[in-house]
Formats: sequence, structure tokens, C-alpha cells
Amino acid sequence: MNKTYDLVIIGAGPAGLASAIYSVRYNLKTLVVGEVVGGQMTEVNLVENYPGVPKISGIELGQRMFDQARELGMEFLGESVETITKHLDNSSFQIATSTGKTFTAKSLLVTSGTEPKRLEVENEKRLRGRGISYCITCDGPLFKNKTVAVLGGGDAAVTGAVELASYAKQVYLIHRRADFRAKPSFVEMAKAKPNVTFLVPNGISKVDGTARLENVTLETPVNGQNLLALDGLFVEIGSRPATTLTNQLGLAKDFYNFVVVGEDQSTSVPGVFAAGDITTGSNKMRQITTATAEGTIASQTAYHYIQSLRSPLSQLSPLSLHINPTKCAGCGLCV
Amino acid sequence: MNKTYDLVIIGAGPAGLASAIYSVRYNLKTLVVGEVVGGQMTEVNLVENYPGVPKISGIELGQRMFDQARELGMEFLGESVETITKHLDNSSFQIATSTGKTFTAKSLLVTSGTEPKRLEVENEKRLRGRGISYCITCDGPLFKNKTVAVLGGGDAAVTGAVELASYAKQVYLIHRRADFRAKPSFVEMAKAKPNVTFLVPNGISKVDGTARLENVTLETPVNGQNLLALDGLFVEIGSRPATTLTNQLGLAKDFYNFVVVGEDQSTSVPGVFAAGDITTGSNKMRQITTATAEGTIASQTAYHYIQSLRSPLSQLSPLSLHINPTKCAGCGLCV
Repeated sequence: MNKTYDLVIIGAGPAGLASAIYSVRYNLKTLVVGEVVGGQMTEVNLVENYPGVPKISGIELGQRMFDQARELGMEFLGESVETITKHLDNSSFQIATSTGKTFTAKSLLVTSGTEPKRLEVENEKRLRGRGISYCITCDGPLFKNKTVAVLGGGDAAVTGAVELASYAKQVYLIHRRADFRAKPSFVEMAKAKPNVTFLVPNGISKVDGTARLENVTLETPVNGQNLLALDGLFVEIGSRPATTLTNQLGLAKDFYNFVVVGEDQSTSVPGVFAAGDITTGSNKMRQITTATAEGTIASQTAYHYIQSLRSPLSQLSPLSLHINPTKCAGCGLCV
Repeated sequence: MNKTYDLVIIGAGPAGLASAIYSVRYNLKTLVVGEVVGGQMTEVNLVENYPGVPKISGIELGQRMFDQARELGMEFLGESVETITKHLDNSSFQIATSTGKTFTAKSLLVTSGTEPKRLEVENEKRLRGRGISYCITCDGPLFKNKTVAVLGGGDAAVTGAVELASYAKQVYLIHRRADFRAKPSFVEMAKAKPNVTFLVPNGISKVDGTARLENVTLETPVNGQNLLALDGLFVEIGSRPATTLTNQLGLAKDFYNFVVVGEDQSTSVPGVFAAGDITTGSNKMRQITTATAEGTIASQTAYHYIQSLRSPLSQLSPLSLHINPTKCAGCGLCV
């Protein structure tokens, strides 16, 4: 017999853990399933924009949120969700994890975040972890006194280049446009570093090396040369949401596969909510603050949803109508 | 000659301070004007639902956010804003404070929050945070296995009573009328709880206790008794935003005087943003997490707005068009 939860939260980043904190306080029987405590936040070396916690590593901040949720009563399983199937009566979901454990969930919160985008060139996969990385904070310190390049034009790329400059010998910042999406103050910081060289506008058409990365081929020659010798390449060109589970659930998504959510974090499927980087919410800003807020709001919506399941009035009209006030049939149950 | 700021933030609660942290990191010249560091959060005795900071007083959490913003470069003035006038060319605002200081602001963020309606009886102020609370979601879980009362007849009061019933020993729901403004389904849910007792129509004429709340005096006796022994009293008779400044600015508001904001925290007036409890945002949940998220988003919107003022393209179409992508004229400036 499967264990049944009021709410199963998929993902243990700030959205999932914030929601767990609120959900257990709402007395919902809550299980968080996630492989990485802290989620993508763990790839941030120094968080200084989370209000109330001046300077902290992403790993440590994740651990604090986790301990707090645990203390309040969250159950946790440190693995990944493999499949989700909707019960025929539409009132519950069957979940199977990577190790074959199974559960029943009355409602679901998807907070599985995003995954870094790849360069998509030959040899990239083979040289991943052998000179090619997608996380400066994680792997940068391995390149002390080496020559490295960062590809990208956003905050992650530019602040990463600044970070690398403090210990690498030479840092190239390669971006397809001459202007940057990153904050101007970050670009100024990078320009002020004597060992950061801007290669813009430019791109990488090829990566090569035998045992490890040795060089990349630039789209536009620099000093007459297309070949640039490198010990390390950091690809920081954005991220995208994983789609396996959201496809299984049939959630409505935008063009970039982000899950479309309402102001209450409801998705297109009744009983399924989403929060954090995977959603179209919070003006798409995708910060720790906005993830925790979306998790907070999702908990309240899940709480009202679970209450509506318990009420005999819930039989009067489809459940989804109680969740989305714009479609409300005026039953008096709507949140 | 007035000092000019890119962004003046009115209010020093979590929304204002989170926005200050982000705004200074965006290199915006930022001033926060507010009387109470921490805002309404300072009335919460024990915050245990702010992710990453397990147990902290609202005052201490406010102070930490303040110190963090200061460290990053926020300027601060510990007084209130008296008047705001819009410059004739629509591109700046003149601000005068309660002590007569004046400033120019290129953009404004209103985070002046709400104030809970008080019971307005003797001892209430002294016992605030000592058994008397104005926020069930914040303080409810501190009353496990205790005897508590909720005063009020709206959704917050009735759903709060249901929430409390799941962990408190006994919950009294006190309301001045026999019928409730709350949704009927919520009232049914409360009635279905064996440990919720309705005391209606009734009211509270007195609250008393030495170190903490001990009892309240009911307007109408119950079982011949006016005195009701309580560990906790939740006054849930509504909250209201201050309207002086929002009226001066001519911001669009809802029926209850909350400032209507878009997903990017813009208001109906170009260059004026709003965040936190004073807005209609975050599904009206009004938590610390949602306040910091709204402040975060407002900073990005203000940053883009200030960038647009600096760009010659800003002359091409009204500024508000750059802020709201759904109205975007395709100028390339839109966020």
C-alpha cells in the first residue's frame, strides 16, 4: 500500500524548500523529493542578495533552508522522480522514484528548475568535465594560473569572468554581441581587471583536444588567428527547464518550455502547482527571493486545494474551477 | 540644489530593503526613506517561515536586511515622506520629508505597507507580541495545544480559525455578527472542526494579563461568564494601506486601497513602482518572502526604466510602453 501525501514537492531548491516550510505549517502531509539540496543555488559561490543573510555560499543557504523545513516536519527523499501518472478519478497522482519507490500524492508542486544550455558543437560532450564546464563557481578554482574563456553575456558570464580573474592567469570573455545583458556595474568590474580580455562580438564554432580541452575555434579571427589555446572553457549562455516530468503531466508551457502559472502558482492541470525557475512567474526574474515567494504562494494554493477536496461542496463543480478565480462558477469555495 | 536619486524607496520593511539590496547592485543611486526599520515585520515576535533563517524576531530580521543593504551602499533617512509632487516634464518627482528635507527622484518605489486594524482597547499595545497577534500565518504555530481566540468575520479570520484548529487545543471564533463576510465554505469548514467554538454575536471589551495575555472580557456573557481565559488572541479585523501618498501620486487602487501593480511591479503612473503589502501582487498573500520578491522585481523594472531615461530611444515612445511588454511598440528597449 502506497504512502499518501497531501503534497509532494519535486525539487529541493529554494522554491521547494520554502514551500515545504509553509506547507508543513499549513499541516499538509508534505514530502520533498530532490537529488540536490539547494538545487541550482548550490552552484553559486557567494550569495549576497538574499535579504537577511548577508554573505553565504549557495550550498550553506540551501542546507539552512533544508534543516529549517526538516525541523518543522518535512519528509525528504534524496532521489529523483522517474514517472508520474494521474489517477483516473483525477484526484491523485502516482509517483515512482529512480530507485523504484512509489507514493500517492493528492497534489503536486513542480520546482525542478532549469539546466544549463550547451554549446551544441562537436566534441563538447566528450570534453565536458575535461576542460569544459557550465559552472564557474563549481569548477573555476580548478583553473588556478591557467588560461580560460567564458562564453556568454549575462550576469553569470560577466561576474564569473571577474571571479576567474582573481586566480586564473588569463580570462577571455567571449560574447556574440558587443553589448552585454549583464548589469553595467559587472561589465565595468570585468573591464577593470587587467587579465580579462573581451573578444566581442565573437563566438565559438569548434572545441578540440585529445584527453582534455586544448583549443577552441573562434568564429571571427583575433590577431589573424581563429584558433585560441585554452585550458578551460566555461559555457554560461543560459539555462532551460527539463521537460520529462512536465510533459508527462501535460502542463501548458511557453515557447521556451517554462511552465505557465497563474498568480496563485496553479498550472493548467488541477492539483498540480509549479514554483521557482521552471515557471513563467515573477516577471521571469528567477532569483532566490522570487523562488521562495513562488513556493510560499504555491503552498497556500495547495492548502486551499486540499481543503476543497475534503469539502462535500467540491463535488458540485470541477475542482479546477475552485483554483482559478477567473473561471469561478460562484460556488463559494473559490480561493 | 536638491540631491537627485535614481530611485527613492518609501518604506524600510522587507520589500523596501530587498529592493535596496538589488538596486544598489544595479548601480542605481538609491535612497530609502522610512520610519521603522523592518516595517510591520517588527510586530512579529518569532519569524519561523522565512527560508534560511530558522527562528528570529521580526526586529532582528529587519535589522539584518538593513545592515546588508547599508553595507552594499544604500543611503537611508529614518523619517517619513510628507509630500510628493510630480515634475511637470513627468521625468522626476520632488519629495519632502517630515523634517522638511527635499530630494529629487527619477523614479519611486512605494513600499509603505499596511497597518492591521487594532482592537483599540486598554492593554492591547502592551500585550502585542505577548499573546496578542495580528497574523495567524506568522504566529499561529506558536500556539500548539493552547487555547486561542480569533476575532473577526472575514476570510482571514475564519480560515485562520480552521488552520489554528489543526494544532491548537481549543479555538474560539468571536465575531460581532452571527453571519460572516467569509466565504460560506470556509465557515462550514470551521463549523466542522470539533475544537472550534463560535461565540457570535459577541465582542471583546477588554484584554488582560501580566507578563502575557491571560484573559479577555466578552461583551456578551457565555455560560454566565464574561471572562474568557486565553493563551492567544488573533485580531483579524482587517488591515489597511495608508492612502496619503498614493492619493498624491494618483495611483490606481483597488476597492480596499491596495495599489494595483503589474507583474513587473509597475503602477498606473510611469516611473512609480510599488512592492510589498501595499500592492495587489503575489496573490495578495502578504508574507516576508513575497515582499522581498516584489522588491526584487521592482528593482529590475526601475533599473530598466532608468536605463530607458538615459537612452535617446526613450524619446520615441512614451516611457510606460517600455515597461509593459504587452504594450511594447517593438523599440528594442522593452524589458
